[in-house]
Amino acid sequence: MQRINFKKAAIIGVGLIGGSIAINLRKKGFTSNIVGIGRGADNLKKAVELGVIDSWSHDIAEGVKDADLVIVAVPVLKVADAVKKALPALDKGAIITDVGSVKEAIINEIEPLLPPGIHFVPGHPIAGTEHSGVEAAFETLFIGRKCILTPTEKTDKKALAAVTQVWEAAGSHVVIMGPKEHDRALAAISHLPHIIAYTLVNTVSGMEGGIIKYSAGGFRDFTRIASSSPEMWSDICAMNKDALLEMVANFQRQLEGLKKKIAATDTDGMKKEFEMAKKMRDSLLDTGKED
Amino acid sequence: MQRINFKKAAIIGVGLIGGSIAINLRKKGFTSNIVGIGRGADNLKKAVELGVIDSWSHDIAEGVKDADLVIVAVPVLKVADAVKKALPALDKGAIITDVGSVKEAIINEIEPLLPPGIHFVPGHPIAGTEHSGVEAAFETLFIGRKCILTPTEKTDKKALAAVTQVWEAAGSHVVIMGPKEHDRALAAISHLPHIIAYTLVNTVSGMEGGIIKYSAGGFRDFTRIASSSPEMWSDICAMNKDALLEMVANFQRQLEGLKKKIAATDTDGMKKEFEMAKKMRDSLLDTGKED
Repeated sequence: MQRINFKKAAIIGVGLIGGSIAINLRKKGFTSNIVGIGRGADNLKKAVELGVIDSWSHDIAEGVKDADLVIVAVPVLKVADAVKKALPALDKGAIITDVGSVKEAIINEIEPLLPPGIHFVPGHPIAGTEHSGVEAAFETLFIGRKCILTPTEKTDKKALAAVTQVWEAAGSHVVIMGPKEHDRALAAISHLPHIIAYTLVNTVSGMEGGIIKYSAGGFRDFTRIASSSPEMWSDICAMNKDALLEMVANFQRQLEGLKKKIAATDTDGMKKEFEMAKKMRDSLLDTGKED
Repeated sequence: MQRINFKKAAIIGVGLIGGSIAINLRKKGFTSNIVGIGRGADNLKKAVELGVIDSWSHDIAEGVKDADLVIVAVPVLKVADAVKKALPALDKGAIITDVGSVKEAIINEIEPLLPPGIHFVPGHPIAGTEHSGVEAAFETLFIGRKCILTPTEKTDKKALAAVTQVWEAAGSHVVIMGPKEHDRALAAISHLPHIIAYTLVNTVSGMEGGIIKYSAGGFRDFTRIASSSPEMWSDICAMNKDALLEMVANFQRQLEGLKKKIAATDTDGMKKEFEMAKKMRDSLLDTGKED
């Protein structure tokens, strides 16, 4: 397939993810005109200095003018609002895509507003580091990582193919699934673990005698994700509420079952449950390099 | 304090922990006669080859004969049995200590059996690696690590001082606490997290569509401890049942509270809870080097 060329790309939110996509758009020859849109002037100036973007604006409508590719890389709760501000300024044929980690709620807000000829491709690259801001951005961030795209029946096929090409050029393995399926998968493998880590730290730190200070490496590794941004995670929990509550209920049932085995000193039952988990966990390591 | 000299030390269970203590006993000049006791001849021969022990036996009573220090480094469920086999062969003045990660149950089994003049000092070094066997043993394993000793009113003060000296010479920071207090602390910071990790992996792997294969680095880090030995952990859960069940119940209450906030889309409430956890988790990092 021939490489698509974009006249102008607009990146709304020039942070780790937005910045890393911008670097890829330029290096892989998709466009030579990239505008960055955001609130922080220092970060945007830095992005120009680093050659990540060519120009910048604080105003979404002004920034996206004449862009035929708009990538929305702001926190999940702000994606729909950014798209709403961009739509009136876009020409027919323009493609908008996002990187939000919740898909159905975003799609439900955006799709009814789309004018004919403006295409929205919902996306979610599963990539990141613990750093943020454009200075943390780098070209190889997406290599070997999955990027989930969740088209609906309204999604334009050519626009989907174009966005797929961008992610594949960046080194991602593109996976197509339904928005609901995505949200349940992410609730299970990402949102639930965060909830559990926060809950575990609060359980232990609530104990008398400062027991938490005896925690060793294992506890710290385990609870590393409890250091994630509280704001981002409360937004994600709110936006993916239904799927997350379903996973929390599944987890509660599983824990209650294990608790009964512990209470009955059912050593064989516990061992079987632990063996099942170990087998599954060890099998993930085998494919570790792929992700 | 003058360094104690032991005529002969016996290590029951010459693995990562037992082997590393043996290396320290010799290098720090506590004794020049160390016998290793265990089931695996290959491992014991290797331990002699490596200079970790001087001789070995499969028989506990035979091996501990004439030893004035016995260190029991076998899995928690086997500690009491090993001590029972050693007791008839020991001379007055001998000190027995262990490294089990549950203390009260072990003490309750051992103390009633102790003949006058034979001293038991319950211990638990919080150290380890993911490797096992004597080949994994090394001198610096305990440096900077906490070693919890849990004497009771029956514990001989001189024996406690001697065991303290051994651990401090190995570089450990010795902490004295009651057996019940130890078991509650470990239930919270170690046993509960293992239970949670096993439960999380089983929750996610039970889902349709093989969702678990989309898991990325975060989930893997978080569930690393679910790869721990199922046998060891079912034993620990059985032996520390009461404290562990209390912690599971605390965790369940905390999770139920957070679930209600998610269900009510109480973003502020969630954020507060996540912030509390993040603050505590981040504060642990500050003291990371100490442990």
